[in-house]
Amino acid sequence: MAVYVYKFGGTSIGSVERIQAVAEKVKLTHDQGDQVVVVVSAMSGETNRLTDLATQIQNKPVSREMDVLLSTGEQVTVALLSMALNELGCPACSYTGSQVRIETDSTHTKARIKRIDDAKIHADLNAGKVVVVAGFQGVDEHGNITTLGRGGSDTTAVALAAVLKADECHIYTDVDGVYTTDPRVEPKARRLDKITFEEMLEMSSLGSKILQIRSVEFAGKYNVALRVLSSFSEGRGTLITYEEPAVEQALISGIAFNKDEAKLTITGVPDIPGAASKILGPVADANIEVDMIIQNIADDATTDFTFTVHRNDFEAAKSILTGACKELGARAVTTDNSIVKISIVGVGMRSHAGIACKMFKALADEMINIKMISTSEIKISVVVEEKYLELAVRTLHAAFELDQELPEVAG
Amino acid sequence: MAVYVYKFGGTSIGSVERIQAVAEKVKLTHDQGDQVVVVVSAMSGETNRLTDLATQIQNKPVSREMDVLLSTGEQVTVALLSMALNELGCPACSYTGSQVRIETDSTHTKARIKRIDDAKIHADLNAGKVVVVAGFQGVDEHGNITTLGRGGSDTTAVALAAVLKADECHIYTDVDGVYTTDPRVEPKARRLDKITFEEMLEMSSLGSKILQIRSVEFAGKYNVALRVLSSFSEGRGTLITYEEPAVEQALISGIAFNKDEAKLTITGVPDIPGAASKILGPVADANIEVDMIIQNIADDATTDFTFTVHRNDFEAAKSILTGACKELGARAVTTDNSIVKISIVGVGMRSHAGIACKMFKALADEMINIKMISTSEIKISVVVEEKYLELAVRTLHAAFELDQELPEVAG
Repeated sequence: MAVYVYKFGGTSIGSVERIQAVAEKVKLTHDQGDQVVVVVSAMSGETNRLTDLATQIQNKPVSREMDVLLSTGEQVTVALLSMALNELGCPACSYTGSQVRIETDSTHTKARIKRIDDAKIHADLNAGKVVVVAGFQGVDEHGNITTLGRGGSDTTAVALAAVLKADECHIYTDVDGVYTTDPRVEPKARRLDKITFEEMLEMSSLGSKILQIRSVEFAGKYNVALRVLSSFSEGRGTLITYEEPAVEQALISGIAFNKDEAKLTITGVPDIPGAASKILGPVADANIEVDMIIQNIADDATTDFTFTVHRNDFEAAKSILTGACKELGARAVTTDNSIVKISIVGVGMRSHAGIACKMFKALADEMINIKMISTSEIKISVVVEEKYLELAVRTLHAAFELDQELPEVAG
Repeated sequence: MAVYVYKFGGTSIGSVERIQAVAEKVKLTHDQGDQVVVVVSAMSGETNRLTDLATQIQNKPVSREMDVLLSTGEQVTVALLSMALNELGCPACSYTGSQVRIETDSTHTKARIKRIDDAKIHADLNAGKVVVVAGFQGVDEHGNITTLGRGGSDTTAVALAAVLKADECHIYTDVDGVYTTDPRVEPKARRLDKITFEEMLEMSSLGSKILQIRSVEFAGKYNVALRVLSSFSEGRGTLITYEEPAVEQALISGIAFNKDEAKLTITGVPDIPGAASKILGPVADANIEVDMIIQNIADDATTDFTFTVHRNDFEAAKSILTGACKELGARAVTTDNSIVKISIVGVGMRSHAGIACKMFKALADEMINIKMISTSEIKISVVVEEKYLELAVRTLHAAFELDQELPEVAG
C-alpha cells in the first residue's frame, strides 16, 4: 500500500464535469488499495471573482479579511470534490486549512506553514477514506485564517506529503510534464522523465511556471518525490527527484527563458563600500523585484552596475535609479526594455567548463549578440535582444541535442 | 453605551453597493459610542448558486459537505463587510462560526447552537471594533462545520444578543416592520410598533415569514428585545417584546394566512386507540409536514380525521392516506387542495370568548363558508375556500378595526 498526495489546480477542477473527472482519477488509486490525500485549489476564475469584489470595496483590502474572503474558494472545491467522490461510492471527507489543521505564521496573504497536525488525516485514511484538503490556506496560532499566496496549493500538497511521508506527491496541471524548453517556442521540445530539484528550481524561476518555487524548495528539503502530470491526459509526467544524475545523463536538462525583462545600468559609480546597497535599497523599498544583478570589476575609481527587472516595473525603477545616480555622483543611467533572458540549466554542467563556451559559440554562429551573462553552478543565463528569443532557444535546443531521446538509466 | 446586534439578510447585502450602505448604517451606531456586532447572511443568490453546483454532483449531497460548501456564502460577506467598514475608517474584524466559536450539535444542515464563546467578541468590542459574524453557521465539538438551516442567521443574531446581553437585536430585512396583515392583500394594513413574542410566533408560523420561528422562540426564552426594521428605509420598525400588553391594547394584533394549503379527510375511522398514529405515522415517515390536525368526537364507533399539508405534498399525502384507509378499514378519503388558512392572532384574546364569535359572524356576513376551525390560546384559525382569501382578510381586518391607530401606551 502506497500513500499519495495529489494536487489539482484551478483549471483541473474548473467545472462540475472536471471535478467529476478528478474524482474518477482519485477513485482508481483508492480502488487499488492505496491511500490518497487530495489537495485542491479554487475553481478557475473564482479567485479573480472574489478579488474583484474586494477591490470594488477597498483599493488595498485589509489583508486579514482578504484571507477570509479568498479561502472560501478552496472550501467550495473541497466540498464539491468530496461529494463527487462519495457519489462514486468512494468514501471521502473534506478539510479546510483550519480544520486539518495547517498552522502558519500570521503573515496574511503570504503566510508560511509552521506545523501540520495530521491526526485527522491519518484517522480518515486508516478508515478507508480519501481525504480532500483545501490548498493555499492555513490558520495562525490565534485562529485567524491565512493564505500562502498564489500557487500556495502546491506548497500545501508538498507539505502534506512531507508530513505523511507520502510515496509520491503528484502535481496535476495542464501540461503533461517538464519539457526541455517551451514547446510553443521549440516544437522539438521533449518531455523529461526526470529532473533534479535543483534544475527544477532554476527552470521554475526562469519562466517555466509549472510549480511554485517555494513548493519545490520544500520538496527538496523534505525529500518528497514530486511528479508533474497532466490532469487532462494519461502519461507518467516528470519525476522531480533529489537523486544525483547518472553519469550518462545529458549535461543540460533544459532551456528556460524570461520574456518581459528590462535592463538598467548605472555607469561611473564611485567604487566605495555601500554603493550597491544605496542603488538597490530604494528599489527594494519600492517592492520591485530584481532578477539578475551584475557589477563588473572596478575600472579606475568607478564601476558599472546593471540589473534586470520585470518590464512592468521598468519606469518606476528607472526613476529611482535616476535619483540614485545624482546622489552617488555617478555618470549616467542607461536602460533597455526590450530584452529577454535565456538560460541553460543542468546539474550535469557542474564540472564541465566547456558548456558556457559551447553556448556562446552557438549564439554567435547565429549572429546573436549577448548583452549580459550571469552564471550559477547549474545554470548559465544570457540577456539578448527580445527579437532573438525564438531563434536563440531553438539554436541552443539543437546545439545541446535536447531533442534526442536518452537511453533509460537506472535511478 | 448600548450593545446592539444587527442582522442583515441576503437582499440587504446583495451587492457591493448594498454592503457599503450597510457599513454606513453600522458606522453611525459605532460613532455614537455604542458597541455593535453585525451578523450577515450570504449575498442573495449565492446559496442557490452553491446548492445548484452541489446538486449537479449529488442528488442528495452529503450533508457534512453541504455545510462546508454553504458556509462559504457568509464567509464571503463577513470579509467584504469588514473591508467596507475599515474603508470608512471604522475598525472591524470578521469571524466565521468556527472562529467565534459558535458550537452546535452535529446535525448537519439543521444544527442547534449549544454554546457560544464570546471572548474574542468582547475583546474586539472593548478595543473599539465592530465585530462582523457569519450567520447561519457553527462548528461541532469535533471541528466539523455545521449550518443552522434556512433562516439560521436570525438564530445566530438572537443567540449572540442573548450571550452578549445586548440591549436590542435588530433584524434588518426588506419590510419595515410587522404589519396587522399582508399589505399586498389589505392596503389598510398597519405597521405595529410592538408585538409580543407569542403573537409573533403565531404570525411567523402562519405565513408572515419575516423571522425564522426558532429565532423568535430563542429571543423569548432569553429575553432578547428583537426589533424588525427595513435595511432600505428609515423608521423604528416593530419591537418584539416579552411584555404583557397593557389593558388598552387591542384584542387582536394581526391577521395571518397560509396559501397553498391542502386538506385531507379520512372518514369512518374505527374509534380505537392508535388510529391517529397509524394515519399520521406514514405521513411523518415521508417527511411531509402536517399543519392543522382535527379529529371530531367519535360518532357511533367511528370518527373523522382531518389534517392539512402544503399543496406540494398533497399528492403524496393522498396516496399514503388511501393506503391507511384500507388498512384501518375506514370508510373513505376526501380531499380539497384549493383551500387557505386564515388566522387572527392576539395575546389580548385570551380571556375574551366573544372574539371567535365575532370572527365567525364577520365571515358569515360575507357568505364565506368555514370548512375547518382550530384554536389556540392566542389564535383562531379557519380554513376557507381559496377564492375567499382576500375578501376574508379584509373583512376581518375591518371587523377588528386593525386599521385604527392606537394611542401610545406606556410599556
